[in-house]
This record gives sequence, structure tokens and C-alpha cells, in this order.
Amino acid sequence: MDSIDHIGIAVNSLEDAIPVFAALLRQNPSGSEEVPSEGVRVAFFGAGPGRLELLEPLAPESPVARFLDKHGQGVHHVCLATPDLEAAVSDAQAAGMVVLEPLIREGAHGTRVAFLHPRSTCGVLVELIERTG
Amino acid sequence: MDSIDHIGIAVNSLEDAIPVFAALLRQNPSGSEEVPSEGVRVAFFGAGPGRLELLEPLAPESPVARFLDKHGQGVHHVCLATPDLEAAVSDAQAAGMVVLEPLIREGAHGTRVAFLHPRSTCGVLVELIERTG
Repeated sequence: MDSIDHIGIAVNSLEDAIPVFAALLRQNPSGSEEVPSEGVRVAFFGAGPGRLELLEPLAPESPVARFLDKHGQGVHHVCLATPDLEAAVSDAQAAGMVVLEPLIREGAHGTRVAFLHPRSTCGVLVELIERTG
Repeated sequence: MDSIDHIGIAVNSLEDAIPVFAALLRQNPSGSEEVPSEGVRVAFFGAGPGRLELLEPLAPESPVARFLDKHGQGVHHVCLATPDLEAAVSDAQAAGMVVLEPLIREGAHGTRVAFLHPRSTCGVLVELIERTG
């Protein structure tokens, strides 16, 4: 069974957003990292399934910057864990879902991920992440 | 430590949305319920923390119907669990967050919940749910 891995929230500034979620979650971020391939700086709250990820754009032409321009701050994506990413991507395509190119890409912490276009998933940008453990 | 309880996704039709998330999550919904106080019919995937909730409006003037009119389908709220709802609401107000009226209300499954306005929480409608267990 696949399960929710994390929620990604697009924010204008990690510096401003971290205190808000630290107050809400009663904890400090568990870490932060730059993901140059996605043009974001990321902070995490929690480490396991159900954790929360804040995304700040590194450059004005990055996908998260474009999301902020269009929608403002808010939930950017929902990430589901799957044991076999190739199979999940193939199944999603067979079910008529649109997988964004490149189909398989590198996510945070050296993970392998894929993204499904929101138009085929009820308006939700779905990230699939491979968890073999 | 508070943690993510569930994600709520606003959809036009449960009948159309359930097959999409059943395919993505490789499971059938664990149940469904009407929450007349919020004007929604709800279907759940999973039962514990990190579960997913699909929300279909029961009436055109309900908050979820207005959300769909304005934003289209997508993530509607993120729910965080807290052991003491009154304390969490009081702390949120003290931190300058806006708690929607009525401050404490009845959620699905007879739970007690509160909602924080997105303008004070980085564009995310945050639901707080009391979990005493």
C-alpha cells in the first residue's frame, strides 16, 4: 500500500515561514537543504512519513517561483511513497495520468521522484517518491 | 509534539475522484461520511495519521463549494493533531494567528476541531484536531 510521505508548502521566505510552522508543530525544523535541480531551498519538520516540507524558490524562473506568482503561498504538492517508482509511473500513465518530464528525477536527500500533473489528479500536484525500505 | 493528522482535498465529485486516489494509493477508501455542520460529504483513504480526506460539497453555499468556485479542485486544508485543543487555539491566537469562528467545532467522527485562517499560516488553511490518545 502506498502512503503519504510528506506535504510540500511553497513560501516566499523560509526565514518568515519557519517560525509559523515551528509554533504550530511545537518543534524546530529537522533540517534544511538546497535542491538545485528543482530551484528550491527546503526546510523539513519531522523526519518520517507525514513530515512537512517548506519550499522557498532560489530563482525567479523556478517552478516554485512561478507557483507563488500564480497562486501565492500554500500547499504546493502532496508526496506519496511507493516501493517501485518505475512501476508507479507506468501504472499512473496507464490510468491516464500525466507524468511530467523528466519522468524520473532526483529529489531531496538523493531520493528518486516523479511528478503527476494536477489536471489528472483532481488539482493536486502529486509527487511519487521511491521508498524501498 | 503535534503532527500531521490528514490532508483534505476539495473535489467536485467523490464518484469521479475516488478512482483516481484509489489508483494512486493502491487501496479503496476506508469509509465515507456526511459532515452536515461543514456542508460536506467526505471519503477517507487510510485510517491513522497521514490519511487523505476527499471533500465534496453538499450545497452550493458551503465553504468547500466556495473554495471550488474560487480555486478549483485541490488541497483544501492540512490537519494537525494536538492533545489539547483549547491550549492550541489559545497559543495560535497569542502567536498572532487568526482562528475562525466558531473557535471550537465538531469535525468528522465526532472529533473536536478548529481552523486557522490561511492569511496567518502561509496560505494554508490549517485544521487543528484534538487527539487525546
